[in-house]
Amino acid sequence: MAKAPVLTPRAEDFPRWYQELVNKAELAENGPVRGTMVIRPYGYAIWERMQSGMDVRIKETGAQNAYFPLLIPQSYMTKEAEHVEGFSPELAVVTHGGGKELEEPAVVRPTSETIINDYFSKWVQSYRDLPLLINQWANVVRWEMRPRLFLRTSEFLWQEGHTAHATHEDARNFAARIHHHVYADFMTEVLGIDVLPGRKTARERFAGALNTLTLEAMMGDGKALQMGTSHELGQNFARAFGTRYLSREGTREYVWQTSWGSTTRMVGAMVMAHGDDDGLRVPPRLAPVQVVVLAVKGEEPVLAKVHETAAGLRAAGLRVQVDDRTDTAFGRRAVDWELKGVPVRIEIGPRDLEDGGTATMVRRVPGSREQVRTDVLAGLLPGLLEEDQALLLRQSRERREGNTTDVRTIGEATEAAVAGGWARIPWSALGPEGEDKLAERSVTVRCLVAEDGSVPETDDAPGNVAVVARAY
Amino acid sequence: MAKAPVLTPRAEDFPRWYQELVNKAELAENGPVRGTMVIRPYGYAIWERMQSGMDVRIKETGAQNAYFPLLIPQSYMTKEAEHVEGFSPELAVVTHGGGKELEEPAVVRPTSETIINDYFSKWVQSYRDLPLLINQWANVVRWEMRPRLFLRTSEFLWQEGHTAHATHEDARNFAARIHHHVYADFMTEVLGIDVLPGRKTARERFAGALNTLTLEAMMGDGKALQMGTSHELGQNFARAFGTRYLSREGTREYVWQTSWGSTTRMVGAMVMAHGDDDGLRVPPRLAPVQVVVLAVKGEEPVLAKVHETAAGLRAAGLRVQVDDRTDTAFGRRAVDWELKGVPVRIEIGPRDLEDGGTATMVRRVPGSREQVRTDVLAGLLPGLLEEDQALLLRQSRERREGNTTDVRTIGEATEAAVAGGWARIPWSALGPEGEDKLAERSVTVRCLVAEDGSVPETDDAPGNVAVVARAY
Repeated sequence: MAKAPVLTPRAEDFPRWYQELVNKAELAENGPVRGTMVIRPYGYAIWERMQSGMDVRIKETGAQNAYFPLLIPQSYMTKEAEHVEGFSPELAVVTHGGGKELEEPAVVRPTSETIINDYFSKWVQSYRDLPLLINQWANVVRWEMRPRLFLRTSEFLWQEGHTAHATHEDARNFAARIHHHVYADFMTEVLGIDVLPGRKTARERFAGALNTLTLEAMMGDGKALQMGTSHELGQNFARAFGTRYLSREGTREYVWQTSWGSTTRMVGAMVMAHGDDDGLRVPPRLAPVQVVVLAVKGEEPVLAKVHETAAGLRAAGLRVQVDDRTDTAFGRRAVDWELKGVPVRIEIGPRDLEDGGTATMVRRVPGSREQVRTDVLAGLLPGLLEEDQALLLRQSRERREGNTTDVRTIGEATEAAVAGGWARIPWSALGPEGEDKLAERSVTVRCLVAEDGSVPETDDAPGNVAVVARAY
Repeated sequence: MAKAPVLTPRAEDFPRWYQELVNKAELAENGPVRGTMVIRPYGYAIWERMQSGMDVRIKETGAQNAYFPLLIPQSYMTKEAEHVEGFSPELAVVTHGGGKELEEPAVVRPTSETIINDYFSKWVQSYRDLPLLINQWANVVRWEMRPRLFLRTSEFLWQEGHTAHATHEDARNFAARIHHHVYADFMTEVLGIDVLPGRKTARERFAGALNTLTLEAMMGDGKALQMGTSHELGQNFARAFGTRYLSREGTREYVWQTSWGSTTRMVGAMVMAHGDDDGLRVPPRLAPVQVVVLAVKGEEPVLAKVHETAAGLRAAGLRVQVDDRTDTAFGRRAVDWELKGVPVRIEIGPRDLEDGGTATMVRRVPGSREQVRTDVLAGLLPGLLEEDQALLLRQSRERREGNTTDVRTIGEATEAAVAGGWARIPWSALGPEGEDKLAERSVTVRCLVAEDGSVPETDDAPGNVAVVARAY
């Protein structure tokens, strides 16, 4: 008897599969104000693991965490011309506070470049104060017309880094360091997602930046998702806010700046990059629960064995949860852990108690099921979890490689993207006018990459290739 | 030659001392929107240590972290009558989003009881779903007319816990567990602050609660600071939002709820409970930097010894920072670390390199200074830091005991509080009318305690004592 599908199959309706999975795996729900999101405990536990993995890497660069206010005077937003143009349509505005109309309305931060520069301009006096490397973990609000949980929400959680440097070169190097050693490293090593590093075209750049570095990933339907960006802001905000320093030579110079962010979108990326028709597949290094030990029946010796096994796995350094809710049918619980994508399920029933103890081990990533002795599990599982982690990354890479086509014309590029894949086209054959044509079919340049696969220094460097796709 | 004071002495002007210290120790600054606050890296590192210490204890109770939206439909706030009355004067209201006036304005959360109950009413179906134990780390906005950094700010950071239980008793026990085993334990063991547990009078209770448990601490000027509160909400929000469950017996029952919060106020409490005329004294278990190793001069052998010593202390599990900024005068750096309240300073100069290595060890809490061999430091310091931690708690307890007077009349109670201390007065001699009289002199009942020092079950239990003071 075939089991009824728990989710709409991906091949049938990918967006619907995504929404059902986010809800049924208890990651998140819609909030009451349009576009907002309630992140449920399981979704938040995954986000907490993302935060801690990123936070360690951010602190290794020398950046320190701080916190700037949620509310920004509306006038600040207008100080940098491109910035205000980019963000105005998305702002939430507080007009009343403490029962009165405010003298100056305040915007709920959509990002903090403006307010942070207000303080940088006070804190930076001399070259000795540079580089100034600040990060904050915060919520931001950008009014969203077509909301989708984790992917586009009117409020989202993120980290935003903001730095000031004495020279253009130092700023450029720092943005590249965040791009490669924080973002790409975390996404590859922990999220198990193959990310393509590149440079945004002028059209796609951050409002107020000279250059935006991006990491793009292919989702299960062949569309692209922007995973994290690092911006070289040049001296634009420094000039707007008067952020200057006294150089060693005694001259007053504007600082060079960067900003960089990654968000709760990463949770959505994890769902769409690894999920299958049975549910999530959470990468073992990320998983808040790596192993769930299930009691098939509620008999005392079974429960004792379940807890003993879980204790042994915890002692081996694994993140383990016991499921002894035997008043709920075993099959239903198994389906639930499948949906939640816990990497390994250890099922112990009455028949497993003989011969010193066995269990059924189900590995979510490869989808394997086998009988094992419980006394070897603690030795075995750390290695198997690393195998599964590597498998996810390999599958992610194979998907991108298998669904990327090299093309020569705008028509071919559009066709490949609309069909659900990525196309690589020489930037010289596309250009800004070509970008406009792609946009008519909701196709965008995700990034430019150099001939040798590195991130190009300019949009128009010879040999630049544009990677185009439909995107979330 | 007496050194010029770095700070206004506490005895001269305590509020000014506080404000200067918060700024000079680089904890925080005022934000541009009235009442908001920029938390600088050193202040935020202290808050992060508070967060992690609290988070572990919260998770030990079985509560899970989640995240609810910042923006709450204005109509939600009006569903519980006392709640809307309590919070209306403090609300910040978003009237415009995405360039348009909103159909229904949204308030920036001042606390999340209302929006969380909206979801609890969906998530709780059966007794099997209870208890439901949720915590969130978030920012909240309450418009503040008389702002003071960390103590009263229009935006602050906090954790807010929200739970739903099947019975009144279970809810009451859980609120008490948070009160004692999370809040009191953390504040005593980590913050080194002697906190008095008690019960709020009806006048001082949370808007919408049946009962509020509080922890009150005495600051350096004898005033009180509320450190954290746990509320028994009864069924008030459950009735307002229809949060019901199907009992084992098949009846539909309203849940019993709690909520509990602690905030960035704790940073202010740490400043005012332990700080002295030279700066902060950060408790060693809390301190982001427990030991700073200073190079007195920039000579190569000195720097090598400084880094070697720091590495040895790190290997002993201590949180260590090196100060080798020898282009800044040594005296100025020493004053700066004194201001920042780092528990131990290890100073190494050229003369310390002889005889296998010595250093000057300065302990911030007792204010001692002595010459030590560097090779014994790693063995010595963990124990000394624990001594200093204990000393801070003892001093905090002695301050409270030495500045609390037992009185019989409202006049005596007022006098003691206005003079800068706490008074204990039988609740039977005070009562709600007496509270009104105290309020005329800005004196409040901080809490009620039972005769035996425990937390009373009702306001009017025989033998209840009111602890009254001026408060932050």
